[in-house]
Amino acid sequence: MTFEVEQKFPVPDHSVLLAKLSALGAIRSEPIEQIDTYYAHPTRDFAKTDEALRIRRAGGDNFLTYKGPKLDVETKTRREIEISLAPGESAAASFGVLLEALGFSPVATVRKIRTLLTAAWRGQSVEVALDDVDGLGTFVELELTADEAEVDAARDAILSLASELGLGGSDHSAERRSYLELLLERATAPEIP
Amino acid sequence: MTFEVEQKFPVPDHSVLLAKLSALGAIRSEPIEQIDTYYAHPTRDFAKTDEALRIRRAGGDNFLTYKGPKLDVETKTRREIEISLAPGESAAASFGVLLEALGFSPVATVRKIRTLLTAAWRGQSVEVALDDVDGLGTFVELELTADEAEVDAARDAILSLASELGLGGSDHSAERRSYLELLLERATAPEIP
Repeated sequence: MTFEVEQKFPVPDHSVLLAKLSALGAIRSEPIEQIDTYYAHPTRDFAKTDEALRIRRAGGDNFLTYKGPKLDVETKTRREIEISLAPGESAAASFGVLLEALGFSPVATVRKIRTLLTAAWRGQSVEVALDDVDGLGTFVELELTADEAEVDAARDAILSLASELGLGGSDHSAERRSYLELLLERATAPEIP
Repeated sequence: MTFEVEQKFPVPDHSVLLAKLSALGAIRSEPIEQIDTYYAHPTRDFAKTDEALRIRRAGGDNFLTYKGPKLDVETKTRREIEISLAPGESAAASFGVLLEALGFSPVATVRKIRTLLTAAWRGQSVEVALDDVDGLGTFVELELTADEAEVDAARDAILSLASELGLGGSDHSAERRSYLELLLERATAPEIP
């Protein structure tokens, strides 16, 4: 079983982080648009069970991802299963139709521009995502994928890299809510006059 | 929306059919093994709703298929959605794990050797499958995929090709049950001493 160990922080912009990551020798990829459509389970309330199911479209490729409940309060460690689907827009649409036939229903779509960097840190290859999320602003996510036996080491590496990057201070606390949760909270929040 | 129009018949063997199809100019592919694992829905009883969800492994390729309820008593016309998954045994296994995380559970696996032929008939390209099913014996399936507007024409073509092949007579009635249903009935049937 594979686990995703992750921490996320809201940041005012990405320029300071890009400079720090570059000084660490991180390798940067081209920005890519990711369009994630999240689905509700026919009977289980994923908001309560802390699970998620989404179809991700990214540069013509499609993925189906299941995320299990978070296992830890500090990071966002959770079980993750990601499957490649056939590429192309119509394949993603067909998969949506299939999920709806099974009783799943689309909840919301999260669109973002993600710039990925890979940083060597404590012998691990940490994935750093600089995200610009439609309607939510700019964030940084640090992530490692780990087998069950490696989860503690992965968590330590993520926490120390966050500290190295100046993240996680008192004015910079980690955001444990997903982009989906943040978007849904924003959608249902009372208007401030 | 795409519909699958299909008729299936148990046959004592495939040799007579192969000769007739060859005389009609049908094109024959190499036999292929198909391993279909069927899943139960977390809350819907697919045996009652007449739906099906399966992962098909065939020669290294993987497909996820949803079949809706049959729409007609004579043929097995039904809605079908089929999605290509990433190839390889571990991709199929991961998809099974994902379905189980969502509350689906494996019910049974149908293994068969399928020899596919394509027969031009009444201006349509009918897919003819000669199946040798583990535990059930030999069958022939005639199938057309059709849009909603073409379903009646597809059904007429299937029925007339079946008649041309000597199928569907009084000693040769069509089998409307799926291989899965036949296997499950066999598994639960009382022993005849």
